[in-house]
Amino acid sequence: MALRGKHLLGIEDLSVQDIELILSTARSFKEISTRPIKKVPTLRGKSVINLFYEPSTRTRSSFELAAKRLSADAVNFNVSTSSVTKGESLIDTGRNLQAMNPDIIIIRHNIAGAPHLLARHCKGCCVINAGDGMHEHPTQALLDAMTILEHKGRLDGLKVVIIGDITHSRVARSNALLLKKMKSQLWVCGPPTLIPMEFEQYGARVCYDVQEAVSDADVIMILRTQRERQSEVFYPSTKEYSKRWGLNKQRMAWTKPDVIVMHPGPINRGVELDPDLADGEYSVILEQVSNGVAVRMAVLYLLLGASEES
Amino acid sequence: MALRGKHLLGIEDLSVQDIELILSTARSFKEISTRPIKKVPTLRGKSVINLFYEPSTRTRSSFELAAKRLSADAVNFNVSTSSVTKGESLIDTGRNLQAMNPDIIIIRHNIAGAPHLLARHCKGCCVINAGDGMHEHPTQALLDAMTILEHKGRLDGLKVVIIGDITHSRVARSNALLLKKMKSQLWVCGPPTLIPMEFEQYGARVCYDVQEAVSDADVIMILRTQRERQSEVFYPSTKEYSKRWGLNKQRMAWTKPDVIVMHPGPINRGVELDPDLADGEYSVILEQVSNGVAVRMAVLYLLLGASEES
Amino acid sequence: MALRGKHLLGIEDLSVQDIELILSTARSFKEISTRPIKKVPTLRGKSVINLFYEPSTRTRSSFELAAKRLSADAVNFNVSTSSVTKGESLIDTGRNLQAMNPDIIIIRHNIAGAPHLLARHCKGCCVINAGDGMHEHPTQALLDAMTILEHKGRLDGLKVVIIGDITHSRVARSNALLLKKMKSQLWVCGPPTLIPMEFEQYGARVCYDVQEAVSDADVIMILRTQRERQSEVFYPSTKEYSKRWGLNKQRMAWTKPDVIVMHPGPINRGVELDPDLADGEYSVILEQVSNGVAVRMAVLYLLLGASEES
Repeated sequence: MALRGKHLLGIEDLSVQDIELILSTARSFKEISTRPIKKVPTLRGKSVINLFYEPSTRTRSSFELAAKRLSADAVNFNVSTSSVTKGESLIDTGRNLQAMNPDIIIIRHNIAGAPHLLARHCKGCCVINAGDGMHEHPTQALLDAMTILEHKGRLDGLKVVIIGDITHSRVARSNALLLKKMKSQLWVCGPPTLIPMEFEQYGARVCYDVQEAVSDADVIMILRTQRERQSEVFYPSTKEYSKRWGLNKQRMAWTKPDVIVMHPGPINRGVELDPDLADGEYSVILEQVSNGVAVRMAVLYLLLGASEES
Repeated sequence: MALRGKHLLGIEDLSVQDIELILSTARSFKEISTRPIKKVPTLRGKSVINLFYEPSTRTRSSFELAAKRLSADAVNFNVSTSSVTKGESLIDTGRNLQAMNPDIIIIRHNIAGAPHLLARHCKGCCVINAGDGMHEHPTQALLDAMTILEHKGRLDGLKVVIIGDITHSRVARSNALLLKKMKSQLWVCGPPTLIPMEFEQYGARVCYDVQEAVSDADVIMILRTQRERQSEVFYPSTKEYSKRWGLNKQRMAWTKPDVIVMHPGPINRGVELDPDLADGEYSVILEQVSNGVAVRMAVLYLLLGASEES
Repeated sequence: MALRGKHLLGIEDLSVQDIELILSTARSFKEISTRPIKKVPTLRGKSVINLFYEPSTRTRSSFELAAKRLSADAVNFNVSTSSVTKGESLIDTGRNLQAMNPDIIIIRHNIAGAPHLLARHCKGCCVINAGDGMHEHPTQALLDAMTILEHKGRLDGLKVVIIGDITHSRVARSNALLLKKMKSQLWVCGPPTLIPMEFEQYGARVCYDVQEAVSDADVIMILRTQRERQSEVFYPSTKEYSKRWGLNKQRMAWTKPDVIVMHPGPINRGVELDPDLADGEYSVILEQVSNGVAVRMAVLYLLLGASEES
């Protein structure tokens, strides 16, 4: 079995079968990370390059551990802004890296579409999008789906609410695309200035009232407030945001008793999420991180399997 | 055989038996680094994360080589100040890393007690303190002890003199704790403004006269002058420091002929230590570095052995 | 078979036999990088340290991939300017690293001769020069020679033209030395302010007219314009440079039909080289990158083979 495509650029390109294949492979790989010897020889002799144009130790480490647990060789290629000023374009960097015969390039870039551009110019290797601008972050949506499935057993028909800055979130966009494909019932909630109309196309119900949004929800995904991505001010103050959109214990009274609370991290404790909740019984946030390694192992494995047969 | 504790947070927590076990294990591992094939499969499939909040290429490289020579996978997680401003606490970073199922997290942090905090919140993995603020640097004291043992055959009863800025030195503190446990006779010497009273509790003899301090010494440990750690000025000038506290050939006339001179590095040549001495017959400084790899291999091995049996 | 020397400090020290041995070894290693499992156990248990004083993700990645494909362990030791200000000299850093028992230290440094200084003080391991100031970059010249040989079958008697800032280019210097040893007919061309008289000693023909230089050339090497290395301004403007010395399609009319165009990268597209040419039929630029991995594998292998026998 293999993925339909050669790259993982976004949830947009995946079929329902692709998603199910990645999730079932991730489930079977998850156990490897809990063994005393957490390493299998599956990808021995494969070269993986982490090409990160944005600083990200968490996602990079997750991919690096995933690669190493499958016995692949990982090389980090961190492009600081100072190196970019040397003047080489993404296409030239990509072609140069490809000439070194890596099997996979994992790219994070602050510009939407950068992984797609790289993929078009790197015919010889697979490209994985580890986050591109405000566009997609497919492995995050896949690890979120894996976590929901572990708790709910299904995605179909579940009420999933995403609360926060929807406009600037690649996590929200990838999740919306995945949840629509898997027939979940998606709600998005947040300040009206931060919810784009585009989300109605994804079949999402837009809602500005937190109480209405979380009522009967099976899953609540809290987004990180990212002041650094916002050139303008979309809400009066952090305190105000927290008061209107932040999730806390009182608001949990409006939800189902078996609701799960998710967050892609890092958490701004006390802003979008109360510390009690982040560490409490509803939270599955650390399970998301564990599943991240498993999903990335699955994606590495399936892409390399696919490319070898083609 | 295993260590009493699950973590290596400081010399303070080690028993005499723990120290002897680490040192004898290190002795047996040292030879591996001199083989043509300097690698054993002992820790294959183990994941080690280097979590460094302070820049340190030397200690990090030593741990990384130690891990790789035991066949463990090492992932570097360098927290630049810019990432810290993203607002995630050490506890959240630690929990997130732990969710990726590492076996060991090696942490260096500018705040004393940071490794202890991490260990309290990371039940699932071992924590090694690679230096926390002005508190402890246990593997440095262990490699120093290993080096002394190689030359003197014992620690018990030896006169060991530490010269320099005792107050701000985690190396001095860890060495003092270890040498007291091992019944050495410790002297500390330096500017009165830079020797804390606390050291008398460690059984150290405080002395402001270099001649008196080095007379009959078996071991002289010179500390690095670290202007960057000092908010105030504790001595008039570097030249003045060198004149009064720096070790040079003339002063060696006051010592025993078989004294050894140690330094944790990097050396400020001509300030705390004369270049002739740093490279001369008394110096065991490079042996300390070699023993550092062996001690770190021993610690990695013993902690993982201990955690597997628990 | 082994190299005559223990280190690879420059083309200057290599005999014709050394060069031929490296190139034939590289040819046999090249195929490894195209296998499904691109890894051989040749250097298992060897430790390679990348000691880079200048930021260079490309050359560092090429060496790192070369090491990993031979199963060596690679540790990156990036010396940021902030660490250098801690005051440790290159000699002390080198001796410290050597005390950790690496088999090879690969060094890039902004000062000419730094690798030679390191080699003199590191008797226990091999040193590879990955670029020192404006002096040499031997693996670049070797990968260039390998690329020329793949296309032309010989170096002897070929007309090779290097165009650009010859004075500040370690690539030009290493290539000149190699091409003289291999009896190629070298021409250098560029602004008169940027061609040192020294090149006539290398047997190079100095020429200020691009048309004359490229006529009958078998190989054209375009150098990168490096404004960052130049304290003074050697030509009026980038536009002016491009107009007089840049290579474009029109100028290719003056050349042989089977000429090849080379560039060490990264390319300033539209300045020293027209985009159409960089990506066109004459260009072998990406082959140079692929050959870089093969040449570095060969050098690592031959140096370690040599040191084991000595």
